[in-house]
Amino acid sequence: MLKPLADRVIIELVEQEEKTASGIVLPDSAKEKPQEGKVVAVGSGRVLDSGEKITPEVAEGDKIVFSKFAGTEVKYEGNEYLILRESDILAVIG
Amino acid sequence: MLKPLADRVIIELVEQEEKTASGIVLPDSAKEKPQEGKVVAVGSGRVLDSGEKITPEVAEGDKIVFSKFAGTEVKYEGNEYLILRESDILAVIG
Amino acid sequence: MLKPLADRVIIELVEQEEKTASGIVLPDSAKEKPQEGKVVAVGSGRVLDSGEKITPEVAEGDKIVFSKFAGTEVKYEGNEYLILRESDILAVIG
Amino acid sequence: MLKPLADRVIIELVEQEEKTASGIVLPDSAKEKPQEGKVVAVGSGRVLDSGEKITPEVAEGDKIVFSKFAGTEVKYEGNEYLILRESDILAVIG
Amino acid sequence: MLKPLADRVIIELVEQEEKTASGIVLPDSAKEKPQEGKVVAVGSGRVLDSGEKITPEVAEGDKIVFSKFAGTEVKYEGNEYLILRESDILAVIG
Amino acid sequence: MLKPLADRVIIELVEQEEKTASGIVLPDSAKEKPQEGKVVAVGSGRVLDSGEKITPEVAEGDKIVFSKFAGTEVKYEGNEYLILRESDILAVIG
Amino acid sequence: MLKPLADRVIIELVEQEEKTASGIVLPDSAKEKPQEGKVVAVGSGRVLDSGEKITPEVAEGDKIVFSKFAGTEVKYEGNEYLILRESDILAVIG
Repeated sequence: MLKPLADRVIIELVEQEEKTASGIVLPDSAKEKPQEGKVVAVGSGRVLDSGEKITPEVAEGDKIVFSKFAGTEVKYEGNEYLILRESDILAVIG
Repeated sequence: MLKPLADRVIIELVEQEEKTASGIVLPDSAKEKPQEGKVVAVGSGRVLDSGEKITPEVAEGDKIVFSKFAGTEVKYEGNEYLILRESDILAVIG
Repeated sequence: MLKPLADRVIIELVEQEEKTASGIVLPDSAKEKPQEGKVVAVGSGRVLDSGEKITPEVAEGDKIVFSKFAGTEVKYEGNEYLILRESDILAVIG
Repeated sequence: MLKPLADRVIIELVEQEEKTASGIVLPDSAKEKPQEGKVVAVGSGRVLDSGEKITPEVAEGDKIVFSKFAGTEVKYEGNEYLILRESDILAVIG
Repeated sequence: MLKPLADRVIIELVEQEEKTASGIVLPDSAKEKPQEGKVVAVGSGRVLDSGEKITPEVAEGDKIVFSKFAGTEVKYEGNEYLILRESDILAVIG
Repeated sequence: MLKPLADRVIIELVEQEEKTASGIVLPDSAKEKPQEGKVVAVGSGRVLDSGEKITPEVAEGDKIVFSKFAGTEVKYEGNEYLILRESDILAVIG
Repeated sequence: MLKPLADRVIIELVEQEEKTASGIVLPDSAKEKPQEGKVVAVGSGRVLDSGEKITPEVAEGDKIVFSKFAGTEVKYEGNEYLILRESDILAVIG
């Protein structure tokens, strides 16, 4: 398995079909568009200047909305993932 | 429902008709123009370098003025929202 | 009323006529020119990394000089205001 | 009177004639050239991230050398002033 | 041997053949592509503003995914290595 | 006399003749070239975010090597000086 | 002798011949290339915002690998040196 470092989070993209099911539809506009994904792994968190480590607010299994142009693609054991920083995640779909 | 992360806030845009009602009218000028919205969800706040979490100053239901070009549009269960950072909010209409 | 967030301050512009009365006249030069205004509302202050909130140095009613190109215009209940950050205020006219 | 905010300092420019008297002459070179002024008002100081307020090192009446392109001009009650940040002041002429 | 300083990490590139074995395949897209490597040496960690030293999350022998354009190449005793900062490492392959 | 503020240092340039005597010769290359000077006045030091003031490492009379394009020239009582920040000083010639 | 300030380090370049001896050979590629040197003097270290001074990790006599385009050249008593910041040093050859 891939274990993300620091404040990184690994997600699977949610396909266009699921996207309709969960209710996220992207409006057709010139603004920055978010994308939907599912969290598959979460790093241990970023370290503050005070030395404190901040546990990410998202957890494995969470469905999230994130900035469309964020992250790095990776294919692992035949599946495609995206490695994001937690700060690229806009909201959890609860 | 969408639950925003950190210092993010989800708002509904206030329509042009309501805008007149609540009293905000945008002057016609070359300066950056604000827009009016209603807060529908508030993140748990940003974490300072000291480790302290700062609760946002706005709450669900607040009517706000925000920077026009800020935020990310999202459509969820048929409604359109905008996800902002709290720092993009200029004032609360009280 | 409009309640500014954080270190924001809402001001009314002081008209050219009043400007002469209070003694501020803008010299004709290529340098950045300040403008005069009157504070109508003050945010609760910015939060430092230490978690401490810093009360703004200006108060409602203060006449101020601010950077000409700073701020966001807004019209509210028929009046025009400018929303500034406290750091855009150069001096108080005392 | 004008009361500067935070780490701002208000100065009067020292005329070319006085400049010779106090001994500052600007060499003719391509480097950034300083200018001479006299402090007429000093802000209460900048606030550090620790919350501590740092009293400026200059005081009313000090003659100073400052970066030529720094500051904002203002005319008040018929006199011309320049509003600088303390960090634009290079040295005190003692 | 090469001993990296601060938050630097020295890695060997994992050849294309091994890459298939461990399961990382790079998708053909316009996004930033990661690369796979094996950690051969780890610095003692970066020092926070608080004076605390943060031990890197990776250890000698870890297989990692890192940003493709990161790092400095070096050849030492006939072998080629790459010197990265720990923040260029996206995930550990566990 | 000129009294530099904060972490500023005032130096006299060391003439080309003296430069040979003290042993500094500038190589003819495309890299940034340092220059030699003698410290004539030292500011009280920069203030850290913690509020602590850091006494400069150089003292009056020190001969130093500094970045060639750093600083602001000033002529005072017939002499030419350069006002630098301590961070522009590379080394002391001891 | 030259005594570097703060987190600066003075090195002698290691000649191409020695480079082969110690085992560093620069690969022929488009990536940033490191260079080899020997530490001849080390500053007392950089000061953190907390006021703590961090002793450099390198010591006089260490052979190091550093970023090729870093530093300032200086010739002193007939010898050529390079003044680097400690952060430009990638690894110690141990």
